Amino acid sequence: MTDTICAIATATGGAIGIVRVSGPDAMSITSGIFSKDLTSARPNTIHYGHIIDKTSNLKPQTSNLIDEVLVSIFRAPHSYTGEDAVEISCHGSRYILQRVLDALCAAGARLAQPGEFTKRAFLAGKMDLSQAEAVADLIASENASQHRLALSQLRGGITTRLHQLRDQLLRLTSLMELELDFSDQDVEFADRSELFTLIGALDKHISLLISSFREGNAIKEGVPVAILGAPNVGKSTLLNALLGDDRAIVSDIQGTTRDTVEDTVTIGGRLFRFIDTAGLRHTSDTVEQMGIERSLRAAERARIILLVTEPGVPYPDFTPRADQCVIRILNKSEHFQAINGLGIDALKEQLLQTTGDEQSSTVISNARHKEALELALGDLRRATDALHQGISTDLVSEDLRLCLQHLGEITGGTITSDEVLQNIFSHFCVGK
Amino acid sequence: MTDTICAIATATGGAIGIVRVSGPDAMSITSGIFSKDLTSARPNTIHYGHIIDKTSNLKPQTSNLIDEVLVSIFRAPHSYTGEDAVEISCHGSRYILQRVLDALCAAGARLAQPGEFTKRAFLAGKMDLSQAEAVADLIASENASQHRLALSQLRGGITTRLHQLRDQLLRLTSLMELELDFSDQDVEFADRSELFTLIGALDKHISLLISSFREGNAIKEGVPVAILGAPNVGKSTLLNALLGDDRAIVSDIQGTTRDTVEDTVTIGGRLFRFIDTAGLRHTSDTVEQMGIERSLRAAERARIILLVTEPGVPYPDFTPRADQCVIRILNKSEHFQAINGLGIDALKEQLLQTTGDEQSSTVISNARHKEALELALGDLRRATDALHQGISTDLVSEDLRLCLQHLGEITGGTITSDEVLQNIFSHFCVGK
Repeated sequence: MTDTICAIATATGGAIGIVRVSGPDAMSITSGIFSKDLTSARPNTIHYGHIIDKTSNLKPQTSNLIDEVLVSIFRAPHSYTGEDAVEISCHGSRYILQRVLDALCAAGARLAQPGEFTKRAFLAGKMDLSQAEAVADLIASENASQHRLALSQLRGGITTRLHQLRDQLLRLTSLMELELDFSDQDVEFADRSELFTLIGALDKHISLLISSFREGNAIKEGVPVAILGAPNVGKSTLLNALLGDDRAIVSDIQGTTRDTVEDTVTIGGRLFRFIDTAGLRHTSDTVEQMGIERSLRAAERARIILLVTEPGVPYPDFTPRADQCVIRILNKSEHFQAINGLGIDALKEQLLQTTGDEQSSTVISNARHKEALELALGDLRRATDALHQGISTDLVSEDLRLCLQHLGEITGGTITSDEVLQNIFSHFCVGK
Repeated sequence: MTDTICAIATATGGAIGIVRVSGPDAMSITSGIFSKDLTSARPNTIHYGHIIDKTSNLKPQTSNLIDEVLVSIFRAPHSYTGEDAVEISCHGSRYILQRVLDALCAAGARLAQPGEFTKRAFLAGKMDLSQAEAVADLIASENASQHRLALSQLRGGITTRLHQLRDQLLRLTSLMELELDFSDQDVEFADRSELFTLIGALDKHISLLISSFREGNAIKEGVPVAILGAPNVGKSTLLNALLGDDRAIVSDIQGTTRDTVEDTVTIGGRLFRFIDTAGLRHTSDTVEQMGIERSLRAAERARIILLVTEPGVPYPDFTPRADQCVIRILNKSEHFQAINGLGIDALKEQLLQTTGDEQSSTVISNARHKEALELALGDLRRATDALHQGISTDLVSEDLRLCLQHLGEITGGTITSDEVLQNIFSHFCVGK
């Protein structure tokens, strides 16, 4: 890194606004617009002073004093980015923050790309790629589950798990090489069973991580819950009762189909995504039939199905998949009345129990990680097949090498392509 | 102050979120939720560590590690509030910031009221009341003029001017007392002319400050500009051309009358508020006549009137007040075509010149200050009348004392009512 970057790191509209600067010239550039010289300022200290616009061609109405600020000093390598870095704490006016940025750029800094501070932290070895991605997830976290998941990943949860897999793979490779040594002696290697035990364990662990994506994705996007039932049995009332007072912080996601509306709500620290569907009934009306088909397609995406009916009406005809859970609700009955909230707390408890506390082991929530794991699993299985078929161990080793490489892409140890990095960090917010 | 307050000081949605803590127990309370003891941390230093939720009854899915943060330490009296204070720099997730607040409150802090940090700064003598009010204006500033006005006030612009007035008033009082000493000797006091010269100067200075409110208010709310003209001469096209690319950051203020829409736009660092009106023409239609009357009332509020017409149509019949400026625009002509922007830059330049660079002297922009100045002027004029009528100088002195007190209310030197303070600071954002 030879250049120094700057960005506004806070949202507009608060009392305080922070401008971040990072790079080899962070101190001298900031000193150029500050009332004090910071080039010899000690690390982890705070300095009060003025930001001053020293460009000469000022417009009328414009003050060359920009703000009274606090400047925080961080020194390489003990900063977030690993570089010399400065944070300028200003009054939170968009106008002021923009002028501070302009002044920094006039003094030699350039505007940071989204995620560029964290990208520099990764390139400086301050964190691996899965931890860098966790920073974005942590900032976006809105409830206990998302927070816990992102924090676990930030603190190296996945990294640790991948190191274990890597150690197992390396052990597998060394066993393979032993086999290779003995192969021209035409002696069956004594520990062939250990080889296959190890392969079996690796296959199982990678498969488990891949399948944990369902849970990880549910934590990030919400556990999908479809509400199915005949018209007028109280599906919308049930939805409103579930959303309750949290309605205000709910986001409305208009589905691709107009008749399906999704609402998310946090229950017991977990995000649920409720999919309200059109009523199910036998009909000859073409338009209504289309709505019903959409409902059934929505139900296919769901992990939990709430089958709703009322006394005297049979439950809708729905056959769940093995990985789907069905909760039957007899609305307008003695024990359940959506309209006045009777039974809602018990239902919420049941929803929580159904999803369980699955996050006790490592959970992945990033589609990029899932893809890399799937590629690694493919490599491992090709290697296994080759072993079973007695194919040259050279080729088997090549598959295992690919497997290691695909696992390495998750933490970024084996990624060098700037294009891939750019793609990952472009989803960050500016200033992080 | 015996309690310690906390608040989120940044808007939600950024990379970084700041939680502020201030009060005698700021260090011990923060230490209670932090991975390090801060009670002996040196002032103006930054500390990396973890915020930990130590409350026992955690819900499932919840991590008791809240975030990895940077904590900034400020020591009384060298802090914004004058108290011991801490700023916690977190990942900018609303969930995280809320949990940090919850943890601080569980550890003994309480949530701050809007503006309470600045109120404490005022009560600790770190700034006077007009400077405290300038903090809110500075945060809200969106263009060069507002920024310069707020910054000038924050840096004591009004305070200095009021001290000058106060010195003059005190000199007046001492002259009065001389008169009082000589009065029973029935000797006309030699310097009676100086007395009236001083009163005249004071009257002029206070009146100037009061009249500067028009300018100050225009800077804050926008210079009001009404667009008047017959229907279809291109008033709306002109408005759109003036708003131009800035349209996106314009706020639409629906007037009390439905036919009048206000749009603000910054031109050359100054805010203008354009009032688009219904077309003016003679009509027997009652509803249309009402719209036209509304247009004329809108024009009354304006400081600048744009009279718009096109070739062959006479300019609308409008008589401006002495303090109003009229700019005539012949649209659809050789030199002006709103539809393709011809002449717009020249018009903007003319608007800027019309408003001028009036901010060279002290400008007030706060209605509370204007009220106090008007009361002070009333006191001064009562004193003057009494002097002219030869009324007892005791009563004159009483009026001058009231005048001093009203001036003092602006900087807060003579305000003790908590209700008044509450009213001022309640308009601040939380966290400032």
